[in-house]
Amino acid sequence: MSEKRQLIQPRTLKGFRDYLPTAAIPREAMMETARGVFQSYGFVPIDTPALEYEEILTGKGGEESDKQMFRFEDAGGRKVAMRFDLTVPLARYVAQYAGELGTPFKRYHIAPVWRGENPQRGRYREFVQCDFDTVGTTSMTADIETALVIHDLLVALDVGEFTIHLNNRKVLSGLLERLGLSERSAEVLRALDKLAKIGPEKVSAELQKTAGASPDQCAKVLAFAALEGDTEAVIAQLEPLVAGSEIGERGVAELRELFGGLAAAGVTEGRARLDVSIARGLDYYTGTVYETFLDALPEIGSISSGGRYDELANLYTKQELPGVGASLGLDRLFGALEHLGKLPTRNTTARILVPFFAEDRRDDYLRLVTALRREGLAVEFYPDPKKLGAQLKYADKRGHELALILGEDEWRSGTAQVKQLATGETSTLPIEPIGALADGLRGILG
Amino acid sequence: MSEKRQLIQPRTLKGFRDYLPTAAIPREAMMETARGVFQSYGFVPIDTPALEYEEILTGKGGEESDKQMFRFEDAGGRKVAMRFDLTVPLARYVAQYAGELGTPFKRYHIAPVWRGENPQRGRYREFVQCDFDTVGTTSMTADIETALVIHDLLVALDVGEFTIHLNNRKVLSGLLERLGLSERSAEVLRALDKLAKIGPEKVSAELQKTAGASPDQCAKVLAFAALEGDTEAVIAQLEPLVAGSEIGERGVAELRELFGGLAAAGVTEGRARLDVSIARGLDYYTGTVYETFLDALPEIGSISSGGRYDELANLYTKQELPGVGASLGLDRLFGALEHLGKLPTRNTTARILVPFFAEDRRDDYLRLVTALRREGLAVEFYPDPKKLGAQLKYADKRGHELALILGEDEWRSGTAQVKQLATGETSTLPIEPIGALADGLRGILG
Repeated sequence: MSEKRQLIQPRTLKGFRDYLPTAAIPREAMMETARGVFQSYGFVPIDTPALEYEEILTGKGGEESDKQMFRFEDAGGRKVAMRFDLTVPLARYVAQYAGELGTPFKRYHIAPVWRGENPQRGRYREFVQCDFDTVGTTSMTADIETALVIHDLLVALDVGEFTIHLNNRKVLSGLLERLGLSERSAEVLRALDKLAKIGPEKVSAELQKTAGASPDQCAKVLAFAALEGDTEAVIAQLEPLVAGSEIGERGVAELRELFGGLAAAGVTEGRARLDVSIARGLDYYTGTVYETFLDALPEIGSISSGGRYDELANLYTKQELPGVGASLGLDRLFGALEHLGKLPTRNTTARILVPFFAEDRRDDYLRLVTALRREGLAVEFYPDPKKLGAQLKYADKRGHELALILGEDEWRSGTAQVKQLATGETSTLPIEPIGALADGLRGILG
Repeated sequence: MSEKRQLIQPRTLKGFRDYLPTAAIPREAMMETARGVFQSYGFVPIDTPALEYEEILTGKGGEESDKQMFRFEDAGGRKVAMRFDLTVPLARYVAQYAGELGTPFKRYHIAPVWRGENPQRGRYREFVQCDFDTVGTTSMTADIETALVIHDLLVALDVGEFTIHLNNRKVLSGLLERLGLSERSAEVLRALDKLAKIGPEKVSAELQKTAGASPDQCAKVLAFAALEGDTEAVIAQLEPLVAGSEIGERGVAELRELFGGLAAAGVTEGRARLDVSIARGLDYYTGTVYETFLDALPEIGSISSGGRYDELANLYTKQELPGVGASLGLDRLFGALEHLGKLPTRNTTARILVPFFAEDRRDDYLRLVTALRREGLAVEFYPDPKKLGAQLKYADKRGHELALILGEDEWRSGTAQVKQLATGETSTLPIEPIGALADGLRGILG
């Protein structure tokens, strides 16, 4: 048009990203894989709104979460906020529907969350989380299963080698009881949680400052967190440190149950190990805690974390709802796989392209591609009747594997050319009967 | 704890809803089915942020959209808004990445959108849309394919009988040209769009008022919109009405191509029909337009609508990007199927439950259920060692189909009892080798 108009610059907000098809295809496949793993254990999906009443969300994830929350007043004057995780909405949800849901309640939830944090490499203000929890049981079976799900997820997602770090809060509680530091366990947890980042000296300084620990107490806490070796060896060293503390002894027993179950299910020592240094800063964990690292990229941090809690929903209900669960940071993991070059780079979802170049035959092409789709094949039909070369170039760029080529001659003879795009190899197949053509194409696709 | 605390009332915002597992399971299956249909045509997924700069979104969907948008200022002082549809983000996206995407670009996008409209039965302020578009081609092949995708989606989603209503804006433009009303086509479109809702008399009044149409012009427009019958018959009546108008004649030719292609692909006359009364109020459509109704529930409105446009992204780029696409209102359709009682009511994703009642055998159970999962079966293992009766009641409530029962006796003999929960029928299967057990279970599940 002749009208002059100022164009709007197309751009996304700082910290937000678009997914181009090359990224969106494997990312969607990852979510599909995750759903398959959750379902194989009988976890069920749920969904909750992106927006909640502000008071439902604030004060639940600590000061930092509150600061990072996207909050505003809606047109009806309500104070609302966008969810910053999937755990707080779950707590609200189980409190609201406890009667209908029954227990044990095993749910998964794959959905975006929003945090206005300062974006760093590989971290965004919008990212998908992939949570699963078993609510309403104190059985260690659920703790074992949580680790098994993390394991199966990472195997199914083909992320390469990984290690699930496991610990039990009760063991630490036992130690603190023995050391006379029980009253300061929250401060000790927060300090210990920084061990990998800031090192033992700074943790010791923080322990003295925030938890009022003596140099001797600090030394013992740090010696405890430094215990290393295979599971049996570490447990053997833990036992005397917590002996006489009921909670500590229970923690050790739970660790034995946990690792026994994992071994029975075939999870090797290399993939799941006792790591008494992991504390998970969050106050609400009370038993098993989980962190998971890619062996090839530990510096991106834990890609799947969680733990057992005694009370999920005690801000919303008087009903006690213990449980255990973990979260897979799907977009963080996606970024890591992108960085490691472990993602496929196809740009199409259809393995077969049918070029369109016998101009008067469109209805014949449509009849054919429809029949192939009914046979279960994904087939893209090029919309414009162009030169074959241009269409094959398109197929190359997109990543189709086969071109099923029918020009006027092929239509007359009832025989299609099948070109394998990676090798250039060509063969011919009769187009009738359609079932045989589909089988032939499947055979070539392998 | 003894501390007294005010509980927060667990609740969702007005117009927002939670999905309980009974609803979330089929809803998730619907999205999965939709992805499969899109992929069978070579459409690729994309993703864009929920939040955009306000100026990207405002003024694109009309005054009403602007009013309903959730908008706010973020912590960085940016004016931001939550997307109200998936078309405006697509326009921004193709303008931003045109070079990388290439054409034809066929994308789908399944994601929630937010509109602060007054909630009515079956309508919410957050709902999932399911859009697909073919950008960068003017070929009618893409118009035909759009109708085929709508068709295949609704067949695959098993929604019962439906009718895709098709029209072409060019035909109406030809008529208006012949009537001397070309300058007022926007007003005519908006008035005609209300025909089903308010009837011909009120439309006539509006045509006279907003488009300055004479009573004779109104009568002709309404006579046109009232044309009915099978496609060939309606086209035969259209032809003389637009004869001599180039655009009108092109519109008729396009309708012939469209219905020819649909017939070739096996879409029956009953499922796709020419409906010259559908206008789709939106100004940007320029060719084929689509609306789709459930035969059993037409009053909920169109469940899949769309059309062809000449310029998708002209607010963001000078590049011309014509295309065609439609949107499946997945949550509206979900609500309709819920209302029609057409949704399954299972409450589990695993067809098999393994009760846990030989207390000392947990590791054996874990070994077994893990092996069955490796064989591709979805198996839920009950976490707590409880009485068998309680666990079978749980299975009944959840909707598991089989219970694989192993007490101490069964473990010793190596033979499990398999109980079909719907009938109570019981059989026995050896638990080794595991492949044979898995096949046996599959056989019983059918």
